[in-house]
Amino acid sequence: MTVTTVAAYAAPAPKAPLERTTVPRRPVGEHDVLIDIKYAGICHSDIHQARDGWGKGIFPMVPGHEIAGIVAEVGSGVTKFTVGDRVGVGCLVDSCRECDNCKADLEQYCTGGGVPTYNGLDKQGEPTYGGYSTHVVVDENYTLRIPEGISLDEAAPLLCAGITTYSPLAHWNAGPGKKVAIVGLGGLGHMGVKIAHAMGAEVTVLSQSLRKQEDGLKLGADHYYATSDPETFKELAGTFDLIVSTVSAPLPLDSYLSLLRTDGAFVNVGAPEEPVSLNLFSVIGGRKTLAGSGIGGIRETQEMLDFCAQHGFGAEIELIDADGINEAYERVLNSDVRYRFVIDTSTI
Amino acid sequence: MTVTTVAAYAAPAPKAPLERTTVPRRPVGEHDVLIDIKYAGICHSDIHQARDGWGKGIFPMVPGHEIAGIVAEVGSGVTKFTVGDRVGVGCLVDSCRECDNCKADLEQYCTGGGVPTYNGLDKQGEPTYGGYSTHVVVDENYTLRIPEGISLDEAAPLLCAGITTYSPLAHWNAGPGKKVAIVGLGGLGHMGVKIAHAMGAEVTVLSQSLRKQEDGLKLGADHYYATSDPETFKELAGTFDLIVSTVSAPLPLDSYLSLLRTDGAFVNVGAPEEPVSLNLFSVIGGRKTLAGSGIGGIRETQEMLDFCAQHGFGAEIELIDADGINEAYERVLNSDVRYRFVIDTSTI
Repeated sequence: MTVTTVAAYAAPAPKAPLERTTVPRRPVGEHDVLIDIKYAGICHSDIHQARDGWGKGIFPMVPGHEIAGIVAEVGSGVTKFTVGDRVGVGCLVDSCRECDNCKADLEQYCTGGGVPTYNGLDKQGEPTYGGYSTHVVVDENYTLRIPEGISLDEAAPLLCAGITTYSPLAHWNAGPGKKVAIVGLGGLGHMGVKIAHAMGAEVTVLSQSLRKQEDGLKLGADHYYATSDPETFKELAGTFDLIVSTVSAPLPLDSYLSLLRTDGAFVNVGAPEEPVSLNLFSVIGGRKTLAGSGIGGIRETQEMLDFCAQHGFGAEIELIDADGINEAYERVLNSDVRYRFVIDTSTI
Repeated sequence: MTVTTVAAYAAPAPKAPLERTTVPRRPVGEHDVLIDIKYAGICHSDIHQARDGWGKGIFPMVPGHEIAGIVAEVGSGVTKFTVGDRVGVGCLVDSCRECDNCKADLEQYCTGGGVPTYNGLDKQGEPTYGGYSTHVVVDENYTLRIPEGISLDEAAPLLCAGITTYSPLAHWNAGPGKKVAIVGLGGLGHMGVKIAHAMGAEVTVLSQSLRKQEDGLKLGADHYYATSDPETFKELAGTFDLIVSTVSAPLPLDSYLSLLRTDGAFVNVGAPEEPVSLNLFSVIGGRKTLAGSGIGGIRETQEMLDFCAQHGFGAEIELIDADGINEAYERVLNSDVRYRFVIDTSTI
């Protein structure tokens, strides 16, 4: 088998608009599946990386780590999938498989060198290219099954936005009797609301304004507050068991920590690049936790997909053609999307 | 019964040296015990409050919330103690008893108005006076039993330094198989080392220098590192399940968080008054926790005293006469004490 050349949308250089191109895909190895990509979600971090916001970007860059498609070919040793299966790929396409975290199904925290779905190097040292493409070759152990009951387009964003919010909600025990707040109602936040609600928690959205209040309540929130209103922080003081912040703006952490009950946790899945400041007495009083969480492991990602299918929901999406990617990027940056752009990859 | 006047050492005004005086003690009520104070520990926060570091101090101020003594009289309704019992009093002498935290034995986080042992107002609105005194009247429900097996002088510091370190070590599951670091080897830190070691954890001291290394190892530490050496942070990266910081200096939190394993916790029991800064990516990678903890509840304080007695240790102390309090304060501020000054209150 040989390297295949497939169509893709790539940023040729930092900050350059994305354009149609081709990229190589490795031969289908013994444990690989070839996926006919149907849909790819646009994550905020795609834009960040395509514009080289963290530096050290590998160009040309094909973003996309919210991938949904159909298995088109399987390697000789593949046991988990067969041709025609509905599958997904998230932020990771490999990891060391040997460190404590990999052994504990926490590949997202692999200390031996995880391989990101794009803008990384695989174990052969070749650049990885993401989901804004027609096909991808992925090890079956890093491939997820998308259950019947979620359409592929609405499933795609679950592979990053879904697992990124599911993982902390599960880890910090969101569920019946728990009061959970989701900060920000964007791509991540809207999944956080849906998932926390499905878990049985009492859900509050904390958003800058009440602009999306109607949506928030429809998505499953019980309450909706504007953080631009100082009364919000007085009224909700000491309320929440768990707050999941999906925003990347620097927040006044002491104010947000004051919203937690004793033993409550404020968990960041979004984060500003600049340092934030807080007074440590904000965590000492009430034994509070300021924590973070990044995506999820493979096993937990499958658990999340099964959970969403069981509860009958995917993401709220706006389907676009590939030639609309650059415009979509601008709209994401302006928070003008409800709630995730998904590329129909048949248009690439 | 009438108000009694008892001898005490007080700061007459902010930053004034402490001097001998008298203060009133309330009549022994139905549920009160009168304690003949034998020893009172000097906590760093005594100095801070006597110098009005947090403002709003009530003067004259009798510091002291590490109290050990003997029951001299009991109220008619007292069931837990009898005359002659060995008892202690910590940082709290009352709380609302009705809030969720009080009901959950977390009186230290009482949201209805806890009453501090000194520099507070009791439920009658009268100032509370602490342990630098010959006698104190305390509700039996906020009085601890000091088990045989710990001398009263070495027991006194357990009432603050002991419980302040025991509580987070217990809450975050220090024990066999766990790697625990204690930052700072002062009054709190030396108790943290003893307790974490007795719990069965592998204990590392992180201190500015190696000056107290020999002591640290004798107290039960398995390892001792100087944080002034940058190599320490390289060598110990990703090592600890739990770090308890007892220092009030602002630490480079991102560096300390890098020492945690996945799901590890950095818990502050000391804290600077100024805000600290950190990069939230330091907690997102590895799902880490930055938390705080303040003293402990009454039930847990008794558990800690029983634990220390069972393991046969109290604090390491330097016993002083009352007329040495002001000099002791200076020595504490210069970190020149191994490891807790305890006042022999018979010298007041």
